[in-house]
Amino acid sequence: MTDRSSLRINADRLNETLQSTCTSWGALANSTGMRRLALSQEDKRIRDWLVAECKALGCDVKVDQMGNIFAMRAGLAKERKPIAMGSHLDTQPAGGRYDGILGVQAALEVLRTLKENNVQTHCPVTLIDWTNEEGARFPGAMMASGVWSTKSATGLEACWEIKDIEGISMRKALEVTSYLGDTPCDYRENGLESYFELHIEQGPKLEAAGKKVGVVTSVQGMKWHRVRVSGVEGHSGTTPMIGRSDALVTASRLITAVRDTAKSTNLGVATVGVLSNDTQSQATIPSGVEFIIDVRCSTDGMVEELCTAIFKNFEEIIAAESNNTSFEVVKTWGLPESIFHEDCIEAVRSAATLEVGGSQIVEMKSGAGHDAAWTSKVVKSSMIFVPSRDGISHNPAEFTTAEDCALGCQILLQAVLAYDEGVKNGTIS
Amino acid sequence: MTDRSSLRINADRLNETLQSTCTSWGALANSTGMRRLALSQEDKRIRDWLVAECKALGCDVKVDQMGNIFAMRAGLAKERKPIAMGSHLDTQPAGGRYDGILGVQAALEVLRTLKENNVQTHCPVTLIDWTNEEGARFPGAMMASGVWSTKSATGLEACWEIKDIEGISMRKALEVTSYLGDTPCDYRENGLESYFELHIEQGPKLEAAGKKVGVVTSVQGMKWHRVRVSGVEGHSGTTPMIGRSDALVTASRLITAVRDTAKSTNLGVATVGVLSNDTQSQATIPSGVEFIIDVRCSTDGMVEELCTAIFKNFEEIIAAESNNTSFEVVKTWGLPESIFHEDCIEAVRSAATLEVGGSQIVEMKSGAGHDAAWTSKVVKSSMIFVPSRDGISHNPAEFTTAEDCALGCQILLQAVLAYDEGVKNGTIS
Repeated sequence: MTDRSSLRINADRLNETLQSTCTSWGALANSTGMRRLALSQEDKRIRDWLVAECKALGCDVKVDQMGNIFAMRAGLAKERKPIAMGSHLDTQPAGGRYDGILGVQAALEVLRTLKENNVQTHCPVTLIDWTNEEGARFPGAMMASGVWSTKSATGLEACWEIKDIEGISMRKALEVTSYLGDTPCDYRENGLESYFELHIEQGPKLEAAGKKVGVVTSVQGMKWHRVRVSGVEGHSGTTPMIGRSDALVTASRLITAVRDTAKSTNLGVATVGVLSNDTQSQATIPSGVEFIIDVRCSTDGMVEELCTAIFKNFEEIIAAESNNTSFEVVKTWGLPESIFHEDCIEAVRSAATLEVGGSQIVEMKSGAGHDAAWTSKVVKSSMIFVPSRDGISHNPAEFTTAEDCALGCQILLQAVLAYDEGVKNGTIS
Repeated sequence: MTDRSSLRINADRLNETLQSTCTSWGALANSTGMRRLALSQEDKRIRDWLVAECKALGCDVKVDQMGNIFAMRAGLAKERKPIAMGSHLDTQPAGGRYDGILGVQAALEVLRTLKENNVQTHCPVTLIDWTNEEGARFPGAMMASGVWSTKSATGLEACWEIKDIEGISMRKALEVTSYLGDTPCDYRENGLESYFELHIEQGPKLEAAGKKVGVVTSVQGMKWHRVRVSGVEGHSGTTPMIGRSDALVTASRLITAVRDTAKSTNLGVATVGVLSNDTQSQATIPSGVEFIIDVRCSTDGMVEELCTAIFKNFEEIIAAESNNTSFEVVKTWGLPESIFHEDCIEAVRSAATLEVGGSQIVEMKSGAGHDAAWTSKVVKSSMIFVPSRDGISHNPAEFTTAEDCALGCQILLQAVLAYDEGVKNGTIS
């Protein structure tokens, strides 16, 4: 058996797999972008491929009720739960080749490396592909890891009923693709020892700081609100400017205020990414406009403070406009701040230090939500970040160098082995 | 033969026909609204009904290459072209029961009145139902009257290729409904002596002034521009507020400026009724937003002046934002100011004065575009307006009293007869 700390992943194999599976299933024409919506034909094909690869490595593959794939390589200690590595293979409608995908393909490369070096771990080691992390097809980000990490059976039933824009339900899509498994989607019945997720940063901080690796200690708190602005329809040619009740003009002022409030308070980030207009007629004054505000801050308290400041500004704008428009706010989704576990953080920190030295590492919070944010609520978890070129993500221009992908994968391997060693030695309980 | 000036339309029959044809074809549930998109099944059914009614009155019915229906009641002077009355039976997706519909049903009531009183006019009298006036299904308002009124065969071919949001072309829709006629859609080959259009005002002016009838002398000039704002996509959670290039925030500032510029210059009205966002993802900073600006003023010079002022303000906003967003403007559509013909205006004025006296009449410009704006470019035309409750139109709440509908119809009848008399007497050449 090889000395564990000298084990190295195969960088060429990882990057060849990353690129070839992207060009095979979901590549966007004329760019290096990807479109692999959850449970689409492209997603089914790469899932089938992944299952076959894992089985070829001798793994035991289970699919749960939300289509999450668990591919387990056995350990020596039969009584232990697995140390997991994973992320998601689905993408935004016009996304990149790294967000989520890197975490799953790196996990596969770790399994391949363990197999070809005949490494016998103490704990089992499991690869996970979580379903519909993006929430781009079925609304609701980190959907299937969320179901797994919460105790409520209602969550499962409710998610099964969520429909895509063509009216196809999640449950139907799971059936059609043959990924409606019978393993319970529940951390209590299909548990893990711990969870590690390698991901691209999706922001500009590592690049700006000139660092190679982010040791992620937490995920910031997030909240989404849907805002509906109501006005009165009217003919654009016959209704005088005075007396109009134009919902789109009011919504425009509110959207500007979302940005201005986030900038002036310096509490976090706030974004309007989705907007719809009921009437959509060139000659009609809009009477109903809806938009969604995404607020994210380091702490849950700051999320509350920023939301409160935004809605206070909304009240002032509505009063100042005095054009008989009104607004209603509904909270649609939230994920409290997630603090990662020191056992996992230390495993990543030590593996990263081993690989690039302390000066190339930075401890950071995640701005984006990830499956690890959910798993951290119920099992020890942490994440590894590698740099994103120009901080761009959710875009075909998303890019991380082959070298950085390999570096992240190597650290994932060593973090898993370090954690496994800790369990074996009893330094991790 | 009855004395022409004592001829009266049947108010009950008109209003019964108006309401029963609406509830039969296109009524919106739970409101008095209508949804009868051009060349939909609802539109085909009322067209079939209209053709049958006109044939039963002894009219000769022709359908042209754009599906416009011409139902002609013969006159004594075989060499004369017809005096026409008409409007459109199509509606906005959630429209009312009067916009367009009143003008066609009133024309039918005039034909019925002429028939049952055995009136022999000098000129033929024709009812017209123009196709796709709203432009709500096939983009482009007043589409088929526009083709008829312009000389270019390219216009016909281009309009045939225009597609609805389901990808169905105008030509296909004409074929499917059996309204692709072989009469040339060209005023030179299928000409008119003159054109009268009864319409609801769609604005608040008659009601506010306490007047019963608008004698319409012109239609204001209009111009539509499509504006595209470009920014850079980014992840909403990981991209700092500083350095964002958010196309929706910039578009919001521009939309507010459209309203503010129209108000401050007092040149006319400007409205953004249509907006789309390329990305539509809660977690993505929008990189591309498009919207359409509708500008309308009394004169073409004022339209130009207002557009110039709006785009100058856009430049200043873009410079002040300095967030690396940019905008492009494309003119998509325009209708120059239309001046109606004094022969037709006088026929309406005299008929209205006869009916309600001079004090109940106001001469006015039309804020909305109408088929008469196009016909006026090539034949003598004018319009009659009746009040709209609260000035509301393009909305299920659109309403005009039965009494006012009947009044408009009576004036239409007498205006047609007055014009016919003028031709017969030689006072109109």
